[in-house]
Order: sequence, then C-alpha cells, then structure tokens
Amino acid sequence: MTSRPGLGVPLTSASNPRIRAAIALRDRRGRESSGLTLVDGARELRRAIDAGVEIVEAFVCEPMLAGPDARVVLDALQKGGAPVHATSEAAFGRLAFGDRAEGFVAVVRSPSLGLDRLKLGPDPLVLVVESVEKPGNLGAILRSADGAGVDAVIAASPRTDLFNPNVIRASAGTVFSVPLASAPSEDVLAWLRTSGVRIVAARVDGASAYTDTDLRGSLAIALGTEADGLTETWRVPDVEAVHVPMRGVADSLNVSVTAAILAYESRRQREGHRDPAD
Amino acid sequence: MTSRPGLGVPLTSASNPRIRAAIALRDRRGRESSGLTLVDGARELRRAIDAGVEIVEAFVCEPMLAGPDARVVLDALQKGGAPVHATSEAAFGRLAFGDRAEGFVAVVRSPSLGLDRLKLGPDPLVLVVESVEKPGNLGAILRSADGAGVDAVIAASPRTDLFNPNVIRASAGTVFSVPLASAPSEDVLAWLRTSGVRIVAARVDGASAYTDTDLRGSLAIALGTEADGLTETWRVPDVEAVHVPMRGVADSLNVSVTAAILAYESRRQREGHRDPAD
Repeated sequence: MTSRPGLGVPLTSASNPRIRAAIALRDRRGRESSGLTLVDGARELRRAIDAGVEIVEAFVCEPMLAGPDARVVLDALQKGGAPVHATSEAAFGRLAFGDRAEGFVAVVRSPSLGLDRLKLGPDPLVLVVESVEKPGNLGAILRSADGAGVDAVIAASPRTDLFNPNVIRASAGTVFSVPLASAPSEDVLAWLRTSGVRIVAARVDGASAYTDTDLRGSLAIALGTEADGLTETWRVPDVEAVHVPMRGVADSLNVSVTAAILAYESRRQREGHRDPAD
Repeated sequence: MTSRPGLGVPLTSASNPRIRAAIALRDRRGRESSGLTLVDGARELRRAIDAGVEIVEAFVCEPMLAGPDARVVLDALQKGGAPVHATSEAAFGRLAFGDRAEGFVAVVRSPSLGLDRLKLGPDPLVLVVESVEKPGNLGAILRSADGAGVDAVIAASPRTDLFNPNVIRASAGTVFSVPLASAPSEDVLAWLRTSGVRIVAARVDGASAYTDTDLRGSLAIALGTEADGLTETWRVPDVEAVHVPMRGVADSLNVSVTAAILAYESRRQREGHRDPAD
C-alpha cells in the first residue's frame, strides 16, 4: 500500500502524548475513567465502524496493512472525520497488542450497556451470562451468539469489563454487532420477567436434558461460571433448569461451548427441523 | 496437608538434574526426543492415572496441595511405584506452568498415536481435526468430544504435538481418556474408507445445513482450520459437505465450537429425540 498524503508525517515516538493516552486504555482503570477502549485489528475495527461505534482517533501503521479489510477500513476512517495518525512501526509496536499487529489500533467510545438499550422483537432468543470473568470466554460466547443469530447477550454481574480489548479481539468484533447489555443479576432477572421472557438455566444438575426441552418462543438461556455455576438468584420456581449430557469423564463443558450448543439447538427447534431420517 | 515421611527431603534447587530434565519437556524438541511430556494439575494428573498412562516421575509441592483430587492423586502416585519428589515452592515455581500451580507436575510417557490403536465399535462417532495448530483449540475439542461421548478423535496432519502440555491442560486431562490418533490426512481418509466409516466434512460452503443431514450410524465429522478450512484431500465424491448456518456478521465459528455443535447434534439424532413440542 503506498503512502497517502492524508495521513501526514508518522508519529515515531512511543512517548507521544496521543500514543501514551491510548496505551493507558490497556488498563481497566484507564478505560473506566475515560469511557473509551481500544480496537485492535482490521476485521474488528471494520465491525465497530459498521455498527456505528464512535471512533475517537485511530493509529495506522501503513507498512503493516494487508488483507481485504485494510483498504475498506482506511477509507472509512478517513471519511469518518476522526483524527487518523500515521504511526511508525516502532511506535505502533508499543501500542498494539501481542501478535495481532495488523496495522490498525483505534480509540473508540465504549457503547452504553443499560438494559433499556435492548429492544426485543417477537420470540427473542437471549443469552444471559453470569459472573463471567475471562475476556476470552465472553468473546467466544459473543462470537457464537452472532453465528446463532441470538437477539441479545446480557452479562449479569460480570467480573470483567465488557469492552476489554481482549473481549473485542476474542469476539472477532461481534461485541459491537450483537445487542449487548449488563446489569446486576437481580436486575436482569426482574427485567426478563417484566419483558415476559421465559428463562431456562443451564445447570449440571438440571432436571431435563436440553434436547427434551422446548427452546422456542420468547426465551432467555442463563449460564453461570464453570467453577460455581449460576448463583442462587436463578434458583427460583419460574426458572427451569436443563443440563447438557456429559458422557465422558469430565463434569462440565467450557461455558462458551455450552452457550453455543444451547443457542444452536434453540435455532434448530425454531426452524421446525424434523430429524433427517423422518 | 501434613508432610509425609514417604516424600522425603524436598528438592529445593531448580538446577537439580531431575527438575532440569523435566523443564526441558516444556520444549517440543525435548518432548519429541524423549517421548515424554508433562502433566500439570491434580485433575489432569488424576485423569492420566485413571487412563493408565505411564507415570515416569512426579514432583509434588505439598504446601500447595488442595482440593478433593489432591489426596487421591498423591495416594495413587505413591502406590504406582514411580519416583515422587517432594519439591520446595521455589523449585516448583520454576517447573510448573503459569498460574496452574496446584502442587503436581508429572513426567509421563506420551501414549502412542497410531491409527491401529483405535478400536471402533458399531456405529462409531469420530471427529477428524485437520491441520490443528493451537494447543488450546485441540484441547477444547477433546473436552467437548469427551462430553459428547465421541468414540475417537483423529488429528490429521497436525501442526502441534498432541501431548503438548497446553493441550493436556486445555483438555482438562481428557486427552488421555478420549481415544486419540494421528496420521497424515491421506492416511486418515484411507483408514476411514477401509473401516467403512461415512465421512461428513464441515465447510462454510457446504451444500446442506448440518440440521438437515443424517448424522447417525458409522460417521466421521471432519473439520479444518478457521483460516483455510479443510484441504482438498477431503473434497472427494464420497465426502459430503455440510455447513453450520451463520446468521450474524462473522463468517465462521471457532473450530472447537463447530466440533461441539456437530458432535452434540449427532448424539441428539442417535438418541431418537423428537422435537419437544411434537
């Protein structure tokens, strides 16, 4: 990719105040005090732009640009009006995360996460993930939720910030496209009840197998942590517990795998599939 | 846990020859030249012992032992006859991996991986994973395969060693309990044909949705890498391609998620589930 006059003289020093301010967003306190976060990678940034996320500024290392998304993202950034800083490879290396150096790091405003931002249509399929701690797990859940066409993901009492750059990366940018909200577990339960959404909880000791459970209609599937499962908040009469059969030596699946199996089974049932041999 | 006379005086130096030889097994070359690998963690070691894996020697840091598996594993190690070295926290810290310091690291002999070790019963469900590179992905696939009761996992032309300590850890030790083999892709295809196993390939451009495909009977499900999919080896007339519908903005799921969805759908069909509303 040839140099473009629009990007100007590259920033070459990692002590540049813009770069230092961006690096501070790798830290949770830096993100919480500013309401900003970092997006690494062309694919992720493209999905943020497509979702209408506010780009505050972007750092571009032109020698590293490659792949089909790079030109599209660069054009969108330049049209968008936020400052785009050409950045030397050395300075970019300090700013970018790990091995994911695709030539783009952007500072973006973290979208709001109130339950009131969710607008559910008829018969919504919602995933509730309680106490999620590992950014990689939350990102994987979002990516599977995107694939399964889940209508909303709600993080109940999360133990990570949802726009942690590692969530963004693990979600392949779908954290911006999947409708997402966060609230304490009690508030999530109350909101689902008010919204008339039936709730099914995934528990290792759930009475029914998920395949014997009707997962159609207006439904939220609630998942807890691998170590402790869902809290007692969800052990109430109007929440039905289901389990995913474990046929081997281990006693549980990864939470993102459980989420994917349940969401895809719900989709399968909704589409009225009959067994192929019928 | 109180000290036991049987464990003797702790090794306190990371330059002890036994500890140095074990640390060398963190490196792939060290594992390949010796045929040995390392198991970290009580749960993982318990599953290795239960599966009959040969324990060569074990390092135990008694002050770190905790949880229900610790006593069982320690007893099994002491009965098993392999040397068990008490190890100081400082020396153990050099030997153990990352934050998974549960007080056990064992040197074990890597089980053999020839296709001839697989004994398939009637109507087996087999997962074939081609060109897998990330130990975390292979471990996650094995863990889901264990849960789904998959009869064998075959790594076709893998790009990681299957008993990489990170595979062991990500699999929660199920790498030892799930029947596992490895061979070049052409040999795997030939072996499946000889064994009379029908093959279904997961491809983003597969003609049928997986939910419209009969996944019962003697079946192998073949999966490629996220970046490149399956190689051309699997694009042959007797291999049917299926896809997992993608309803969002991303174009693929994580390979371990795809494996779990397909394996659990195969199990669902085999158990003759009817839609809950029928």
